[in-house]
Amino acid sequence: MKYDLTRFAINQITTPKWSMPEAIEGYSRNGIKGIAVWRNFLDDYGVEKTSKHLKDAGMWVASLCTSAWVNETEAAAYKAQIDANRRIIDQAAAIGAPCVVMVMGGLPKGDKDLAAQRVRIHDALAELAPYAIASGVKLGLEPLHPMYCGDRSAMNSITDVKGLIDELGDDATSLVADVYHCWWDPAFERELRHAGKDRIQTFHYCDWLVPTRNLRDRGMVGDGVIDFARIRGWLDEIGYEGPFELEIFSELNWWERDPEETVRIAIERCGPFVGPLKK
Amino acid sequence: MKYDLTRFAINQITTPKWSMPEAIEGYSRNGIKGIAVWRNFLDDYGVEKTSKHLKDAGMWVASLCTSAWVNETEAAAYKAQIDANRRIIDQAAAIGAPCVVMVMGGLPKGDKDLAAQRVRIHDALAELAPYAIASGVKLGLEPLHPMYCGDRSAMNSITDVKGLIDELGDDATSLVADVYHCWWDPAFERELRHAGKDRIQTFHYCDWLVPTRNLRDRGMVGDGVIDFARIRGWLDEIGYEGPFELEIFSELNWWERDPEETVRIAIERCGPFVGPLKK
Repeated sequence: MKYDLTRFAINQITTPKWSMPEAIEGYSRNGIKGIAVWRNFLDDYGVEKTSKHLKDAGMWVASLCTSAWVNETEAAAYKAQIDANRRIIDQAAAIGAPCVVMVMGGLPKGDKDLAAQRVRIHDALAELAPYAIASGVKLGLEPLHPMYCGDRSAMNSITDVKGLIDELGDDATSLVADVYHCWWDPAFERELRHAGKDRIQTFHYCDWLVPTRNLRDRGMVGDGVIDFARIRGWLDEIGYEGPFELEIFSELNWWERDPEETVRIAIERCGPFVGPLKK
Repeated sequence: MKYDLTRFAINQITTPKWSMPEAIEGYSRNGIKGIAVWRNFLDDYGVEKTSKHLKDAGMWVASLCTSAWVNETEAAAYKAQIDANRRIIDQAAAIGAPCVVMVMGGLPKGDKDLAAQRVRIHDALAELAPYAIASGVKLGLEPLHPMYCGDRSAMNSITDVKGLIDELGDDATSLVADVYHCWWDPAFERELRHAGKDRIQTFHYCDWLVPTRNLRDRGMVGDGVIDFARIRGWLDEIGYEGPFELEIFSELNWWERDPEETVRIAIERCGPFVGPLKK
């Protein structure tokens, strides 16, 4: 093996043509022992079968993706979303995922009150925090790119996520940092350094394409404009020792390809940025 | 006329099927006396003919769009970009535009050094500032949505723009605020209030569509998720008295329509948000 892949994981959404067992076998066959699990594949295969298969393959889990949205304005519907997230935390604990990646929902349907949605996100995280602590699963707070504010998550600022973690505590919450979402942010480097090695739960790799054709047109590492060497350098200086996780949403390219090819290219492209710390 | 359109302007890019004289006549015919001029139409018609036509039609100019990019790494090419911006400032002065909207370029071709591009933007603005002051034309600093960081402008944070204006001064620079670019930003309201009525040069209206199909799929006011009533409310409280300017990039919809129809709908949709201050 040309590269040390010990810390490398692939997020299942990168290879959506593969079912859960196919992904476990496929990543493992290529020397990748880390996986970020996506809920639809987990539900299809089942928690017990997934757990056993992961164990048999010697795999480790970087995260469970993603939380249920929390963007209902009616009390009963909101409570159902909170309950759904408790069940997702249970699933994460069952498969040995150290965190659930929290994608908190954009604006409620027919509602334009962004400030209220951000209060709702805060309150939902505070309500879920004790359950997460009791379950030994962290709420992985991932700032999403501002272009997803309307319909996926109104948690878009790494600086605001810092404030949430400061308030809710490191036992309940952690930072899920994705270069695709944060690369543009003048505060990105500063906030990574402020977070420090222990608060960064997992680190997502994905490139920003120029041109970007639609909002699900993310790129393979090396195909875009993000400076991975520099950003990996920051993480080395910080002393980060967690996973590097490739996550690509790509309707027009990677999702159409043979996953075997995607995994092979992923290793070539990510290999230089997932190895041991620089000495 | 149902609405008071005194402060309303249309940005020419909203009706690209119209040439400069067609836009002047078309807006004016519909009771809109404000225009944001786009350079390609200005160059086609010429500065002198444009100035005379604007004067004859009783129009006022909200801004000249846009600056030349400043994203060259070689000294001679960089200097050419600075010189091009001086000529654009001259054009703005000639047509009575109070500002040039500064779209500063994304990453240089083949270069991933985002921090260096931001230094380049800073230095270019500092170099242009004395010329802008001498010309009586402000450098209108417009934070662009983070999704344009790679290829249009690496000036993406309204908070960073505040810092630039603080440094370069209110004689040279001003804030061009566009709800489309900034609506998601948790700092948007705070930074508008901090800027205050005199620092906000012009205020752009455009809606965020859900779903957004590509990076040139901006929406007519009312078709998306932005809370215009609330944001106009902030501006009222601040005491802002400048223009409200409709600017829509829309490859798949508005750019394909008859501009006469676009202008008619624009008045209906923007009318409630461009009138006199609330008492």
